[in-house]
Amino acid sequence: MKPSALSALGRRTGPPPISWLMQTALSRPKLISLAAGFTDNSTLPVKISRHVLNQILCSPKTGQPALQYGITAGETNLRQLTARHLQKLDLGGTPCRRPQIHSPEHVIITGGSQQLLYMTLEALCDEGDLVLVEDPTYFVFLSILQSRGIRARGVRLERDGLDLAHLKTVLERLNKSGGIRRVKALYLISYFQNPTGVTTGFDKKRGIVKLLKKFERAAGHPIYLIEDAAYRELCFSGRADLPVSRGARQRVPTIPPSALMVPGAVDRVIYTGTYSKPYAPGARVGFGLLPEPLFTTVQRIKGNHDFGTANLLQQLLAGALQTGLYDQHVAKIERRYGQKAQVMKQALAEHFPPNVEIWESGGGLYFWARLPKNVPTGVKSKVFQTALKNDVLYVPGELCYADDPAREKPDHEMRLSFGSASEKDIREGIKRLGAVLRKFLL
Amino acid sequence: MKPSALSALGRRTGPPPISWLMQTALSRPKLISLAAGFTDNSTLPVKISRHVLNQILCSPKTGQPALQYGITAGETNLRQLTARHLQKLDLGGTPCRRPQIHSPEHVIITGGSQQLLYMTLEALCDEGDLVLVEDPTYFVFLSILQSRGIRARGVRLERDGLDLAHLKTVLERLNKSGGIRRVKALYLISYFQNPTGVTTGFDKKRGIVKLLKKFERAAGHPIYLIEDAAYRELCFSGRADLPVSRGARQRVPTIPPSALMVPGAVDRVIYTGTYSKPYAPGARVGFGLLPEPLFTTVQRIKGNHDFGTANLLQQLLAGALQTGLYDQHVAKIERRYGQKAQVMKQALAEHFPPNVEIWESGGGLYFWARLPKNVPTGVKSKVFQTALKNDVLYVPGELCYADDPAREKPDHEMRLSFGSASEKDIREGIKRLGAVLRKFLL
Repeated sequence: MKPSALSALGRRTGPPPISWLMQTALSRPKLISLAAGFTDNSTLPVKISRHVLNQILCSPKTGQPALQYGITAGETNLRQLTARHLQKLDLGGTPCRRPQIHSPEHVIITGGSQQLLYMTLEALCDEGDLVLVEDPTYFVFLSILQSRGIRARGVRLERDGLDLAHLKTVLERLNKSGGIRRVKALYLISYFQNPTGVTTGFDKKRGIVKLLKKFERAAGHPIYLIEDAAYRELCFSGRADLPVSRGARQRVPTIPPSALMVPGAVDRVIYTGTYSKPYAPGARVGFGLLPEPLFTTVQRIKGNHDFGTANLLQQLLAGALQTGLYDQHVAKIERRYGQKAQVMKQALAEHFPPNVEIWESGGGLYFWARLPKNVPTGVKSKVFQTALKNDVLYVPGELCYADDPAREKPDHEMRLSFGSASEKDIREGIKRLGAVLRKFLL
Repeated sequence: MKPSALSALGRRTGPPPISWLMQTALSRPKLISLAAGFTDNSTLPVKISRHVLNQILCSPKTGQPALQYGITAGETNLRQLTARHLQKLDLGGTPCRRPQIHSPEHVIITGGSQQLLYMTLEALCDEGDLVLVEDPTYFVFLSILQSRGIRARGVRLERDGLDLAHLKTVLERLNKSGGIRRVKALYLISYFQNPTGVTTGFDKKRGIVKLLKKFERAAGHPIYLIEDAAYRELCFSGRADLPVSRGARQRVPTIPPSALMVPGAVDRVIYTGTYSKPYAPGARVGFGLLPEPLFTTVQRIKGNHDFGTANLLQQLLAGALQTGLYDQHVAKIERRYGQKAQVMKQALAEHFPPNVEIWESGGGLYFWARLPKNVPTGVKSKVFQTALKNDVLYVPGELCYADDPAREKPDHEMRLSFGSASEKDIREGIKRLGAVLRKFLL
């Protein structure tokens, strides 16, 4: 091996599994990808964006500031709109008794919520520190941890959110081993989780905050809850009448408020959200609401990264929010994803063997399929390779599990996305995948 | 002090000096800022951007991909256009005998060149590693080093670029002390440098590459040249006939090719460029050309940061480049900056005391003023405070020097920007500053 000048981080940073999947998709034109977390192409707000950008760029007075440098934390207008947007999501029309919770002063605008997750980990974690994650969780978050030398511990996920009893067990175990001193945060994708579609209810959020606070004395420092709400606005459960393909008709729960609303939690919750998924990934704008000292620290780190997200995109989002076009668009895509989810449900009911457990979701982009435990779904498995031969792609579940010495990595699951594929492709993709599974399962 | 969960990086990351200067400017509406590195508002490409964006968003066929996720390294089209653009800058019309030098395969598109500098340091440097920088250099680069615990050593800058003899001395000294093993790179702002306006000629670049290579055996790994060409396209020396305010009429040198063109250097040069300064900071798109293993590593890190820069901005730049509107715009702003530089020169000749040495520039956004060595210009100095009282702001030179145990930080200089201020404000600002200096210098 030739000597390299790379840093430890540089040497650690591996190829992302998702890019391999994407390349595979690109190189096989007939392949149906149920893997990508892309949003639905046909619903992207082309006309709205054109309209808003024309408004901004129709005069030097509004056009010039949009093309100039701005403020590192984000445009004042967009920060205010974002604070109001969050308040509306958390409270509906109800006036907030604690308005400081959704203060624009604590809002930061970022290059997607991904960038905010990255900078949050930079601000919080040294090499060797520990972050608790859901089992399973978002695989790019795991890539960041791996790259930065941060260790992860998995906490079991149930159909209705994080398993509080298991969280307690994990924390107690870490307390006994002394590892608790390195625990900096719990990472929770609270709405229509990636990859499982699970939503964690408000009572559970309350329980999480309480448990984390309980162990702070042992940790010697605050333990933060990073609430990733990337899929929060892709909620179609209230709009489409979704039949449940297996078992009894499920009551669709009202979407819970964020953990920011848990009494006493506001100085422990790092809320990350995004306009990418509900509006447009190509006009990538994310946001977050952070307590001190995190807000100041992340803002400084953002200054070193890029002095603030491109103003033109910020103004585009501000314009869409202000005109109400954003809300109209979100209502439209919720209907669209609701339809597509229904297509996937029906196809699964028709084509998948009955011994595959399906976790349906009332929002987001994903369903979660659990095969019998003895049937692996990983990249090298017969299931994955046969699926690939039959031109259909999914995300193997094992990619979504952290390296955790306390358990084996489950490898019998798959993430199925109805985000970018057309209804026809969803039907055909699930049919192909069903045929593959029937071969190995029946 | 309350216990904090912040990482070492989080604790180290200080407030950026530039944000303090900006806030000062914002809070005093009468203040004339010659500090900001902002570009000229009146020349921002409002109409061009509107035209190109309308072209992109006029149909779903072109609009949808622009609003969708893309490829981490950047859009294929923009990477090709960028490679061609770089080739044109390096070679003019001459066909390249080594076309692999400007290969699109090694081009990465980033959120401004700032993001690329950040990720390059992540890929290369561990805490305690050493980077050589110009004395003085770009202060946000110093902030990144400080935040990441990377040490810097200053190399003297002369009117015609880096002082090769001093570079040799610094390398030899580090070789003797063993510090050479931690040296990962030299950071060079090669065109119209920030803060001095200095351009490093091609012969010097050749000399730099040769010297760095010479010490690689002692280092035990490659030592890279990070060539930051952010101001390369803001070159007005060829267009405006600029009188030189002091001394003999200076021959304006032809702008030299990048260090990529030094024979045998292509696997050691990390070239960072940007469309922000020549086009629009609010549509922040930067780019770089990196050798392996840096390219792959930085691409992976970029995946963890944000999966790639917003497609809409990439398409905007691609459209501007393809239609020739970009080139037209650059020609226009070169004339504009040429005029403004001339206004600043004339005002300096009229108002500044003769014992202030002015480093003029044939491009970029800055002039450099050197006071007698016993007159400090730092934030706490009488000069700075009196200037502030008289509503004029500059960047104190001392902010642009790395912490380097081998020398005292010079504190008698100032960076004067003609970027964002109007011609009237440049005249008035220099007049006010001249009056302050006459008080302390004459």
